[in-house]
Amino acid sequence: MADKLILGGHEFTSRFILGSGKYSLDLINAAVHHAGAQIITLALRRANEGGVANILDYIPSGVTLLPNTSGARNAEEAVRIARLSRECGCGDFVKIEIMRDSKYLLPDNQETIRATEILAKEGFIVMPYMYPDLNVARDLAGAGAACVMPLGAPIGTNKGLTTREFIQILIDEIDLPIIVDAGIGRPSQACEAMEMGAAAVMANTAIATAGDIPAMAAAFRQAIEAGRTAYLAGLGRVRETASASSPLTGFLHD
Amino acid sequence: MADKLILGGHEFTSRFILGSGKYSLDLINAAVHHAGAQIITLALRRANEGGVANILDYIPSGVTLLPNTSGARNAEEAVRIARLSRECGCGDFVKIEIMRDSKYLLPDNQETIRATEILAKEGFIVMPYMYPDLNVARDLAGAGAACVMPLGAPIGTNKGLTTREFIQILIDEIDLPIIVDAGIGRPSQACEAMEMGAAAVMANTAIATAGDIPAMAAAFRQAIEAGRTAYLAGLGRVRETASASSPLTGFLHD
Amino acid sequence: MADKLILGGHEFTSRFILGSGKYSLDLINAAVHHAGAQIITLALRRANEGGVANILDYIPSGVTLLPNTSGARNAEEAVRIARLSRECGCGDFVKIEIMRDSKYLLPDNQETIRATEILAKEGFIVMPYMYPDLNVARDLAGAGAACVMPLGAPIGTNKGLTTREFIQILIDEIDLPIIVDAGIGRPSQACEAMEMGAAAVMANTAIATAGDIPAMAAAFRQAIEAGRTAYLAGLGRVRETASASSPLTGFLHD
Amino acid sequence: MADKLILGGHEFTSRFILGSGKYSLDLINAAVHHAGAQIITLALRRANEGGVANILDYIPSGVTLLPNTSGARNAEEAVRIARLSRECGCGDFVKIEIMRDSKYLLPDNQETIRATEILAKEGFIVMPYMYPDLNVARDLAGAGAACVMPLGAPIGTNKGLTTREFIQILIDEIDLPIIVDAGIGRPSQACEAMEMGAAAVMANTAIATAGDIPAMAAAFRQAIEAGRTAYLAGLGRVRETASASSPLTGFLHD
Repeated sequence: MADKLILGGHEFTSRFILGSGKYSLDLINAAVHHAGAQIITLALRRANEGGVANILDYIPSGVTLLPNTSGARNAEEAVRIARLSRECGCGDFVKIEIMRDSKYLLPDNQETIRATEILAKEGFIVMPYMYPDLNVARDLAGAGAACVMPLGAPIGTNKGLTTREFIQILIDEIDLPIIVDAGIGRPSQACEAMEMGAAAVMANTAIATAGDIPAMAAAFRQAIEAGRTAYLAGLGRVRETASASSPLTGFLHD
Repeated sequence: MADKLILGGHEFTSRFILGSGKYSLDLINAAVHHAGAQIITLALRRANEGGVANILDYIPSGVTLLPNTSGARNAEEAVRIARLSRECGCGDFVKIEIMRDSKYLLPDNQETIRATEILAKEGFIVMPYMYPDLNVARDLAGAGAACVMPLGAPIGTNKGLTTREFIQILIDEIDLPIIVDAGIGRPSQACEAMEMGAAAVMANTAIATAGDIPAMAAAFRQAIEAGRTAYLAGLGRVRETASASSPLTGFLHD
Repeated sequence: MADKLILGGHEFTSRFILGSGKYSLDLINAAVHHAGAQIITLALRRANEGGVANILDYIPSGVTLLPNTSGARNAEEAVRIARLSRECGCGDFVKIEIMRDSKYLLPDNQETIRATEILAKEGFIVMPYMYPDLNVARDLAGAGAACVMPLGAPIGTNKGLTTREFIQILIDEIDLPIIVDAGIGRPSQACEAMEMGAAAVMANTAIATAGDIPAMAAAFRQAIEAGRTAYLAGLGRVRETASASSPLTGFLHD
Repeated sequence: MADKLILGGHEFTSRFILGSGKYSLDLINAAVHHAGAQIITLALRRANEGGVANILDYIPSGVTLLPNTSGARNAEEAVRIARLSRECGCGDFVKIEIMRDSKYLLPDNQETIRATEILAKEGFIVMPYMYPDLNVARDLAGAGAACVMPLGAPIGTNKGLTTREFIQILIDEIDLPIIVDAGIGRPSQACEAMEMGAAAVMANTAIATAGDIPAMAAAFRQAIEAGRTAYLAGLGRVRETASASSPLTGFLHD
């Protein structure tokens, strides 16, 4: 039986999701062809600026579009963007992003719960970006979220899993896919998230700003697959003293 | 042009080396077929106990044997094991391992330099296991080592790159392949070593003790390839404040 | 001019606050006489069990009592405990603690904001224990909190500043004293929090479980004072390469 | 019985040692009067440039002078500097510093062992600066060192205990005072070293470059004393789940 990521009843074999933001045809191609992305985030507002139709032209068929609500400052704005997105033919998936400020871009957990509840009732497959707070993750699950998307570090910092302790708690306690979003700057960090039991990793900046975009996309794909495989294979424990790999019971005497 | 690891004039495409120690036919098969290992370490003493011939039967043709000197407590013992190894038909490669105690199994850098000098002059391809000390690495290079093999953490602890700061210095300063050996317990740690610019990673315990050995071997292969690719593709910088992935120049107003 | 901690108009010279929980006359004595505590937390429910009067007998005069609402699962319960506390003569200070579960004991940020708003309007000096979320800290400030008390790690884990990145953001962005509460297991961790700019540190378990309680109390006092002094004195920057302390411009030649 | 640091039969109550390098009358005064230093390092070469007599004028009586051999590139040069120092009336203490390059300023362990052996036989109280390698520490002990002085991070980087894992091994295995030297940039880092069981901490840059030199000196003193006290008092263990400080056995019901 294949190892699949299931979101709102849809099955995916890829566990890399392309985040929105730095956006180019090259990046989309790299994400799909080199990172194996089956889900691509789209910032609705940008789409509106250029016309949704144009952007959709870039998205290969078979790839699931994940419109986000970036720019929304509260639940009402997020809900409105989500509904508009569906009307425009962008499908039922929506990533909730609600932020109050533009310095740290930290998600507003409470407004995110409210938007999730409203949109889940309207039949959306809701993927909420959130600050990794266990109580909030429980509320999001109760509100009908299809997964929980905690940040690893503030967006674009490339600091990796600064919230490691709390993401592990979410993985252990919440019965939904945990998708790490934001802060992941290196394949090794994506790999570590997957080893911990994350269901998927979202990235954009780390690939978009690499010297060689297709190569970095491929590196993320491999690192994420490696982490997932290691998680399923079972990892060893950290020890305090050395444990001989080589047979050292008897030192050499003669 | 392919990206190759060159040791003593020999070219390898794989950057995973199977360490010695926990040894079984299953592990060797997993290393070769799932991790893509082209080099397999062999603890000479163990080979002698069971008969070198027997062990060699397990090693697939085309795989380079890397006999090590584990059990040696000084340069003389290491030199003697290396010569014996060559006489037994185990080839010109030798991994120097000289340890004084069996609690932390930390390499004796000074004796390692001495053994390296003697064996390099005798035409061996010398791969010295060492404690990551820049001055010692320089002496090993001067003594004719084919690479430098610093430890990440004490053998078998699975603690990862506890010597990160100093391995980075070796990578930046030494004009030889830097191969991280010992302490690597997870694919993400191997990936990080490669992202830093390590030339290869050696592991044994992490794979040998996994629940699913072939799967963990495959995970290491992917993680190492991911790290190498990311290193070549050029990684981004860590930032202190958020950097919007999504277009947030104008928040939504209506 | 002295460096003072100001909470609700009251001035304190000590920046160590004794947390509640493991409670004994020895601990209170050590906190006051060896750690210099001027504020001592009291779990109201426990007080009720034994009679508030009894507990108050232990608290030296001149020490400010900080009743907490531990055991409350929502804002209403917290508000009721706080009112009861004031009626019992425990004063105007109250530490809000609202937790839904007893495994990780993570604070419920949203209920905490609600309780803070109600109690601040009733004239309480409200000190809310919270999960270090910038948006929530802003709401607590808006609701009339006298300070913000983010956790360093789950209560009693002794893991230290696992939320370092986000506590720093609170310190930089919120114009209220930031008091680190929970998870601080060693004096060095308390010292680091103060170096970052925290206004005070609360601890209990680390002292209560030490082999020598008065000595550990004294150690916390010194470490906190050291960190505060260092913060005020201005710390240096981390550098990537060595910077000679000693004059090395010319190596010795002869 | 007082807790004393013993070096070569001499007793000290202070566990802060002023390193050499950035040198001024203000710094010496701060070290002695605010950090309580009883030992002050002196770079002999600088002393020679200005005349030893002049420098000695600055050192308060009762303070032990610790001449170092900075500038020495090998054992012979270090030995010569040490002998000169004794002839000049600088006493029997000597800190061995032998470095080959001026970029990372990492000590040459092997030459340091040689110099230690020669000077210990001549009656010096030898304090060797070293890269924290267990085998080398054993050789230094065997060669007659009065203590072992491992680096925390390259000199002047302020990175703290990057060699934490290996310094702990030295503390556990070597029966000599372990004095952490170099890399300590903050009082909290000095405190942590002492909590681990280090016997003393040496610093210079962190204090010399502070905005307020006397205040930072005082902060180091307190942090070091706090760490020592905590070490002697016995520290608690890190736990994976929360442990209620407050009585939470029964949540509030009504």
